[in-house]
Amino acid sequence: MLKSRAKQMDDFLATYLNADAKNGEIDRPEKLVNAMRHGVLNGGKRIRPFFVIEIAKMLGADEELALFPAAGLECLHSYSLVHDDLPAMDDDDLRRGQPTVHIAYDEATAILAGDALLTLAFDLTAHEESGLSAQVQIELVRALARDSGVGGMVGGQQLDLDNENKEAAEELISRIHAMKTGALIRYSCEAGAIIAGSNHKERQNIRRYGELVGLAFQLADDLLDVTSDAAAMGKATRKDAEAGKSTLIAIHGVEWARERLNQYVGEAEALLAQYGRKADIIRAATHFVAKRQS
Amino acid sequence: MLKSRAKQMDDFLATYLNADAKNGEIDRPEKLVNAMRHGVLNGGKRIRPFFVIEIAKMLGADEELALFPAAGLECLHSYSLVHDDLPAMDDDDLRRGQPTVHIAYDEATAILAGDALLTLAFDLTAHEESGLSAQVQIELVRALARDSGVGGMVGGQQLDLDNENKEAAEELISRIHAMKTGALIRYSCEAGAIIAGSNHKERQNIRRYGELVGLAFQLADDLLDVTSDAAAMGKATRKDAEAGKSTLIAIHGVEWARERLNQYVGEAEALLAQYGRKADIIRAATHFVAKRQS
Repeated sequence: MLKSRAKQMDDFLATYLNADAKNGEIDRPEKLVNAMRHGVLNGGKRIRPFFVIEIAKMLGADEELALFPAAGLECLHSYSLVHDDLPAMDDDDLRRGQPTVHIAYDEATAILAGDALLTLAFDLTAHEESGLSAQVQIELVRALARDSGVGGMVGGQQLDLDNENKEAAEELISRIHAMKTGALIRYSCEAGAIIAGSNHKERQNIRRYGELVGLAFQLADDLLDVTSDAAAMGKATRKDAEAGKSTLIAIHGVEWARERLNQYVGEAEALLAQYGRKADIIRAATHFVAKRQS
Repeated sequence: MLKSRAKQMDDFLATYLNADAKNGEIDRPEKLVNAMRHGVLNGGKRIRPFFVIEIAKMLGADEELALFPAAGLECLHSYSLVHDDLPAMDDDDLRRGQPTVHIAYDEATAILAGDALLTLAFDLTAHEESGLSAQVQIELVRALARDSGVGGMVGGQQLDLDNENKEAAEELISRIHAMKTGALIRYSCEAGAIIAGSNHKERQNIRRYGELVGLAFQLADDLLDVTSDAAAMGKATRKDAEAGKSTLIAIHGVEWARERLNQYVGEAEALLAQYGRKADIIRAATHFVAKRQS
């Protein structure tokens, strides 16, 4: 299911990311378009678009209506990876086995490709061919800007960088997680509710579900980091520890993390109960996020 | 007039750019907010917001309705300066006599401050307190994304970087200008028309006016570069020539540029004729842009 949605998303993104696309623009420089494609079409799992589309469907919306905002969100996520990989940030040469954008092109092009992907995220979210009403679109733009900006993802990345090689308190670690990864995952769920025209109560409910998925996602990530093969063999190759990052597992241990993860999944499932069988796919996705092995 | 509008814009931006501002966000890290303020509150002339507000007024809109989109546009312009100044791009240490953001803070913070300002641009353009209808707001978001992205400003910056130290053909130079500086100035005018609820014909008319102002702005910039004091004294200190950038003046000469500039101003004024005395401020602004000395 996830794979078939990922394919759908890749096809959609490939269509809107080409040098000949116009959309009233003056022109698109080929090199920049190719750098953007390199950053986006990299075999990602497309978990965020998956939640946008499947939550919208669960709440009764036509899935076609969710495609543009879902693609916009993936562009936003991709820009954050392109910029995070830059030498001044995490300085990563590889992502998913491929050279990162600043390695495949150059640093200036990677900065601009990120900027252009961030802009394209709003372009697609507000796109006039999406079939969504102006009211729904503007609510999506507001939520996306809020969750991805200074008080969301970007702010979380800043806090994360500023606290490398420092022993961070639990409260700060949780704040970083909630902003850096949590906000955008929460948005992916809330966007589904906005697209489906949910009332305030349902939107809050789904937003809380998204928050729990974000918490589970981060904890699963931390667990994967300490229980991966290399670590199991006793090698000190744990990525977070190496980067000098404090994690909740370093404070509370693996057993605590596993229990907490189950607790998040349980709470998330309780919020889905009212949707019965309609929530089957989302229920499976919740478990996938919590149990993923890569 | 320009000064009093700039003051109004500075006050507005200072209000929305502080660590305590919430807007439904999780939190705003103080350092990142300060870096954003450093990039925005730098004594800029605020020409773009000026056009948004004054064109909207000229076309009959309440000026209050133009404040949020005008501030959003200034955030977008500011982000582009913060990123353009980065070591991997133009590598500038000073802007308006002050250290650039990556000098005052560090490179990672400057990248993130730019990302956050770009996101804030859409946040403010779509802000629910603006008093604008969802339809008007979504049209603003679409136009802003189009003119600032891969087929507008960012694309223009990419072409500009890729053609340094090369002799560019006239067609390419014009394309770079139209994208890198022209698209956003044109947007500043078109945004005024969108806010005022102009019909298609009026919007196209104002859009063409904005295009002419953009052309005049760039040519005045180029003229300033070759006729500045240092150059007048015969020193080879021309910034564009030093940076290995081709300009239209290098191809056609100063006299041609002055004539062409007058031609643009004349065409722009003709488009304003139908607004009579209501266009007085915009008329004066057209001349200011074409004749500016700094």
